[in-house]
Amino acid sequence: MVKIGVIGYGYWGPNLVRNFFGTPGCIVKSVSDSRHERLEQLRKIFPSIEGILDAEEILKDSSIDAVVIATPVSTHFKLARKALEKGKHVLLEKPMTSSVEEAEILIDLAKQKNLLLMVDHTFLYTGAVQKMKKLIENQELGSIKYLDSTRINLGLFQSDINVLWDLAPHDLSILSYLVDEEPYSVNAKGVTHTENGIENIAYLTVNFLSGLIAHFNCSWTSPVKVRMMLIGGDKKMILYNDLEPTEKIKVYDTGYSHTSDMERQQVMVDYRTGDIHVPKLDTTEALAGMAKDFINCIREKKQPLSSSKLGLEVVRLLEASSKSLERQGQEVILSTVDQPALTES
Amino acid sequence: MVKIGVIGYGYWGPNLVRNFFGTPGCIVKSVSDSRHERLEQLRKIFPSIEGILDAEEILKDSSIDAVVIATPVSTHFKLARKALEKGKHVLLEKPMTSSVEEAEILIDLAKQKNLLLMVDHTFLYTGAVQKMKKLIENQELGSIKYLDSTRINLGLFQSDINVLWDLAPHDLSILSYLVDEEPYSVNAKGVTHTENGIENIAYLTVNFLSGLIAHFNCSWTSPVKVRMMLIGGDKKMILYNDLEPTEKIKVYDTGYSHTSDMERQQVMVDYRTGDIHVPKLDTTEALAGMAKDFINCIREKKQPLSSSKLGLEVVRLLEASSKSLERQGQEVILSTVDQPALTES
Amino acid sequence: MVKIGVIGYGYWGPNLVRNFFGTPGCIVKSVSDSRHERLEQLRKIFPSIEGILDAEEILKDSSIDAVVIATPVSTHFKLARKALEKGKHVLLEKPMTSSVEEAEILIDLAKQKNLLLMVDHTFLYTGAVQKMKKLIENQELGSIKYLDSTRINLGLFQSDINVLWDLAPHDLSILSYLVDEEPYSVNAKGVTHTENGIENIAYLTVNFLSGLIAHFNCSWTSPVKVRMMLIGGDKKMILYNDLEPTEKIKVYDTGYSHTSDMERQQVMVDYRTGDIHVPKLDTTEALAGMAKDFINCIREKKQPLSSSKLGLEVVRLLEASSKSLERQGQEVILSTVDQPALTES
Amino acid sequence: MVKIGVIGYGYWGPNLVRNFFGTPGCIVKSVSDSRHERLEQLRKIFPSIEGILDAEEILKDSSIDAVVIATPVSTHFKLARKALEKGKHVLLEKPMTSSVEEAEILIDLAKQKNLLLMVDHTFLYTGAVQKMKKLIENQELGSIKYLDSTRINLGLFQSDINVLWDLAPHDLSILSYLVDEEPYSVNAKGVTHTENGIENIAYLTVNFLSGLIAHFNCSWTSPVKVRMMLIGGDKKMILYNDLEPTEKIKVYDTGYSHTSDMERQQVMVDYRTGDIHVPKLDTTEALAGMAKDFINCIREKKQPLSSSKLGLEVVRLLEASSKSLERQGQEVILSTVDQPALTES
Repeated sequence: MVKIGVIGYGYWGPNLVRNFFGTPGCIVKSVSDSRHERLEQLRKIFPSIEGILDAEEILKDSSIDAVVIATPVSTHFKLARKALEKGKHVLLEKPMTSSVEEAEILIDLAKQKNLLLMVDHTFLYTGAVQKMKKLIENQELGSIKYLDSTRINLGLFQSDINVLWDLAPHDLSILSYLVDEEPYSVNAKGVTHTENGIENIAYLTVNFLSGLIAHFNCSWTSPVKVRMMLIGGDKKMILYNDLEPTEKIKVYDTGYSHTSDMERQQVMVDYRTGDIHVPKLDTTEALAGMAKDFINCIREKKQPLSSSKLGLEVVRLLEASSKSLERQGQEVILSTVDQPALTES
Repeated sequence: MVKIGVIGYGYWGPNLVRNFFGTPGCIVKSVSDSRHERLEQLRKIFPSIEGILDAEEILKDSSIDAVVIATPVSTHFKLARKALEKGKHVLLEKPMTSSVEEAEILIDLAKQKNLLLMVDHTFLYTGAVQKMKKLIENQELGSIKYLDSTRINLGLFQSDINVLWDLAPHDLSILSYLVDEEPYSVNAKGVTHTENGIENIAYLTVNFLSGLIAHFNCSWTSPVKVRMMLIGGDKKMILYNDLEPTEKIKVYDTGYSHTSDMERQQVMVDYRTGDIHVPKLDTTEALAGMAKDFINCIREKKQPLSSSKLGLEVVRLLEASSKSLERQGQEVILSTVDQPALTES
Repeated sequence: MVKIGVIGYGYWGPNLVRNFFGTPGCIVKSVSDSRHERLEQLRKIFPSIEGILDAEEILKDSSIDAVVIATPVSTHFKLARKALEKGKHVLLEKPMTSSVEEAEILIDLAKQKNLLLMVDHTFLYTGAVQKMKKLIENQELGSIKYLDSTRINLGLFQSDINVLWDLAPHDLSILSYLVDEEPYSVNAKGVTHTENGIENIAYLTVNFLSGLIAHFNCSWTSPVKVRMMLIGGDKKMILYNDLEPTEKIKVYDTGYSHTSDMERQQVMVDYRTGDIHVPKLDTTEALAGMAKDFINCIREKKQPLSSSKLGLEVVRLLEASSKSLERQGQEVILSTVDQPALTES
Repeated sequence: MVKIGVIGYGYWGPNLVRNFFGTPGCIVKSVSDSRHERLEQLRKIFPSIEGILDAEEILKDSSIDAVVIATPVSTHFKLARKALEKGKHVLLEKPMTSSVEEAEILIDLAKQKNLLLMVDHTFLYTGAVQKMKKLIENQELGSIKYLDSTRINLGLFQSDINVLWDLAPHDLSILSYLVDEEPYSVNAKGVTHTENGIENIAYLTVNFLSGLIAHFNCSWTSPVKVRMMLIGGDKKMILYNDLEPTEKIKVYDTGYSHTSDMERQQVMVDYRTGDIHVPKLDTTEALAGMAKDFINCIREKKQPLSSSKLGLEVVRLLEASSKSLERQGQEVILSTVDQPALTES
């Protein structure tokens, strides 16, 4: 039985606790939050779980095997490092850390200690993303040409991270999960409408050497909520509308091929539009799947779907986006593990 | 009675001819197109109009007062210049010209010759744009903070202009019409999926010194057609969905204000969400309004809504977008009439 | 070359003329309408067609092979009878006649004279209805259990026919076309909100002995336009939304089977929900297909898709609905050709 | 502090318990259900509440002030009568009882014992229905001409009640709440697709002497879920789409007036279409409002919004609908308290 401690009982905390509560093979022993009223809430719903004001007590508790860290991102690194050092498995909320450097240190530490380090990119466990993964693996889309995501709504202005760090991790994790190719560079442009200089609207483009382009439109100031992603292959295309109650994924039998007409110096593009297919999706709660994956991977010493490697990839893109924002949209080449020297200057 | 010659009878030509046909105060005398089959079409529907293979004949015809040029953009400048030199009023299809330089030469020439030079930005004459203009003029939106436009569909890959030059003129003309502030700079990033190097997906950001940001998402390769624009003020926000048959404009009584909390180093943002209002719109065909404006302005020596100045503004943004595309998304500062020396470096 | 005369140039007339104009194998010789302004309109758009004030002239014109009758339904019988007597093929607008008796007389007369008598139920020629017909013929839906149609909008209050005679013919023709079984009875209930006693809202149920039920919701007083039909089989179900620009037909892999549990005196129903399929539809204009069918059937002496038999079936249902309306919704058993004696009185 | 016992912990039970749990002024003491597994569920989520197998124990428990009855409708009467006889206030799930007679006996008994008898028509407590009530009270709709409701989905085939008794109570309660006029008669037609003879599709029309007509389309066999109601006044009309997350109510500034043209024997109808207004709605959970109303009315000896009188009205319409179904759709005149002798013949 894996004993779990949860650090942070804010917006997402109750969902995490509820799902680990229902996951076989583990027990939620304690939850910490520095706010009395949050622990009050906890007690009402989960009287069996210990409420603790100081996270340190969880980290020191030798009976706890694994900690779930659901605090502001700026505290992730310190808490996760301490937990790993204490020999505990760690699940981090997204985004994993505030920087690539921090993420890499944690990954190294986990490897060294032979502990599981996982990031909660919940979306990967949805029926929609799982279906898209299968369609892509089965070559139904053909060569992927673009991904275009809009994630806008009237959202809380965060005071520590900008709108890309807040909203884009969902879509970037999906990008990383679905696309095998390493991204090459990013461009980001945004604007702040407050005095703290934190962008509340931002646009991010992730560029790939193959010609694949991925674009992310994020905003906290839209009067309408939109959660829409288009993924275009040359054989088929997907419309993923996460707000649709039952028809989240539409597969369009739409593609195009082009030929060069050398004599007329022209490119001829042939379209094909056909039927649309709306597959039935698994409707299990994604967070339950994530919790189960965490517990299973601890017990079977495996790597989860939502791995620390993928979590790092997302942070790498976010960090580069911040650089591009500073440089007014200029392209920022991504450093990768394999090409550490090629970083943009 | 204004006598009109139409040069170019392609996709848009029949719509132009039909609308000028129905506009009081003018007569469509002749239409030229180098393709026999197009003239055949013309004859079937409009037997009273003269079909001509060579555009030169229209330019030389001294009985013609005004020409409507609906040919590929690369030919606009030459044809329009000749027409103006021959003393004819000119209506140019959008985009006005291939470059700022060409547009400026035509504007100067028209001024010198005391002739009307107008650009057909049809959207300005829609009930939807007219309603938005009124709402903004009446200060109902407050200070405009962003404009976000998506114009994507499965479109013809043009072989002479990229997707921004093809699709963005509509939205850029709306931006120019609705927003008084001069744009400061642009960023553009795109990708081509053919061998001719012409972008079929592109993203354009137009930046303003006030903090207003405008973003344009254009694609010829989306399986779904989207025509959506969000305009956000700090008092109200507009959702403009051009595909809605009757509810194109929704006005959200949604806004936000922020205060700096100096002690806590924080920015507090207050949201307000209220009712939604869907105003009834004028449903007169926009092209009819444009045709009428052209004829009226010729007769009354006035400047039209869709002026050559606005047409030039659109070309200026497109030209800068091409530069930014070449420079991988780098910000390109816009030159303006007043600051010719400040061009991006 | 079939020479055509069109009687009636009201709302639908121009569409008929335009489509016969474009149909190979026929010529529209003349059009009659007693209103000068309508003939004026005709002349503007189709200068080659003769405009006539008196329909009699068309009926007397021996060079005319076929007449298209697009006048109020109360005049259909008289005009069609005269045309048939003069040896002309006849296309009647829907609904065919004001009564079953009239329809039967015309059918007999046409048979006797060996002439084509056809009713313009345009919807049968749409890509959507054709696709549904094919799905049903291929047994994909299984046994059809229900059809449910809503056709409501802000419509013109007709002064001669009620809302069922005005709107239901579309849906009743689809019912007759798609379902082989003879209907058994109808119930209709409606209400009038004007002093002329003509129903502007009405509900019609068509009952079948097999347990199939068809329901029609018709209104001239809805603030929103709805054109929606559900067709439920025990294997698959169809949602037909005619207002969808491209996704008019959705096929749900949804069905149910039931078993009787004799011991527990219960019926167990098993649902199955699966994928949704949105087939690509033929987008040819339906009216063009109807016009072509009329001309072809004249030339090849065949019966059209939208036959007089189907037209009669629709009138039979409408006539029975009027009886049920009079009797406050009481069931009215349908008389059929085979069982003339069984009619309720 | 009002002590509550809940009888029945099926589909709706957990929602009732959760909401009474959160309602000030009351305590949920015990919950009964004859199924062990349901009590198991209860214990997991609400360890503080007593789980009981036999409902009798709750009825006998003299410390319990009020019972909430959420069992199949056929058991409502017996349980409620016993509870009232034991001096307990009663909240009944909808529909109130299986017959008008039962409902009237309970109402008399409650009056005699000076106890509260209430029916849980939750919808009356939604922000949407409250807003519609206000619009109607403020005369914004003018004279109400029709109500048209569609409530269809893939639903569980009930084995004790037909689809009208299952689904229509929601809409009938809204009708009764919004419309002051007494209904005059009903027509109902339906069909069963199983061998138990219980209708799984049914259509109900409720007729009023003023000319108001209300229609209800109910089905357990629709592949799509629809929850839509139109309410048409001669000044304004409402579209109420309960599946819309935020825009449930749209108020159309659409109306019509008619004049009789005596000379031309015609009725002229003038339409007016204007803006649409989407009011912001209260988003408090309706069931919480219902629970609060129950407790408040017990304490303050008042009548609730969702009164037993309204509950009776709904049962009266359902009972008449069953008669009409038996008589193949024949009109059934409603008996009312004031006119007991006028029952349909």
